[in-house]
Amino acid sequence: MSKIYLKAMEEVVQRNMENTNRIMEQAQGYVVSENVTDTLLHTSFDLTTAQGIVKHMHASFLRLAQSGVRDIDPEDSLCFLRVRTRKFEFLVAPEQYFTVTAVL
Amino acid sequence: MSKIYLKAMEEVVQRNMENTNRIMEQAQGYVVSENVTDTLLHTSFDLTTAQGIVKHMHASFLRLAQSGVRDIDPEDSLCFLRVRTRKFEFLVAPEQYFTVTAVL
Repeated sequence: MSKIYLKAMEEVVQRNMENTNRIMEQAQGYVVSENVTDTLLHTSFDLTTAQGIVKHMHASFLRLAQSGVRDIDPEDSLCFLRVRTRKFEFLVAPEQYFTVTAVL
Repeated sequence: MSKIYLKAMEEVVQRNMENTNRIMEQAQGYVVSENVTDTLLHTSFDLTTAQGIVKHMHASFLRLAQSGVRDIDPEDSLCFLRVRTRKFEFLVAPEQYFTVTAVL
């Protein structure tokens, strides 16, 4: 993984350490993918589950959510998604280079 | 609007009256649309804003979110979406016949 992504990710992790620990105590797991290619960068899940989340959450509907928000108001932008399902809650946080999803 | 939808909607509104009032005190407005045809049923917004929310939230990315959740786990289903943007928060609640979005 290129230095830019690594450095950017470490900065985000540092900046959000307190929040991250609080969330991770309750979380079932997490997935981190790179935004341009949707490559899986980090996960605590098995590969199949992680790739499913990247494919169905990051690569498709998150993009549509981002463009939908901009279509409603060009001066607005998506910050965060909480997807509540019968079994889980997906916290989807798009950052500049990568997207992090925690599953509660 | 057919009797089935009206009755179903009144039941949901009654069932959630307490919650609805609490949310509506903080909300900027709401939009209700019918699921099959994405017809606008009720709104407190102007028509253009309401139709934009139905088009970009209900008709497109909510559907993709619902199918994405099912693709990740066929036994799971989407209950609720919270879309946090720089300016607003969209609370999107898909029900059986219609979908309600409150904007905070």
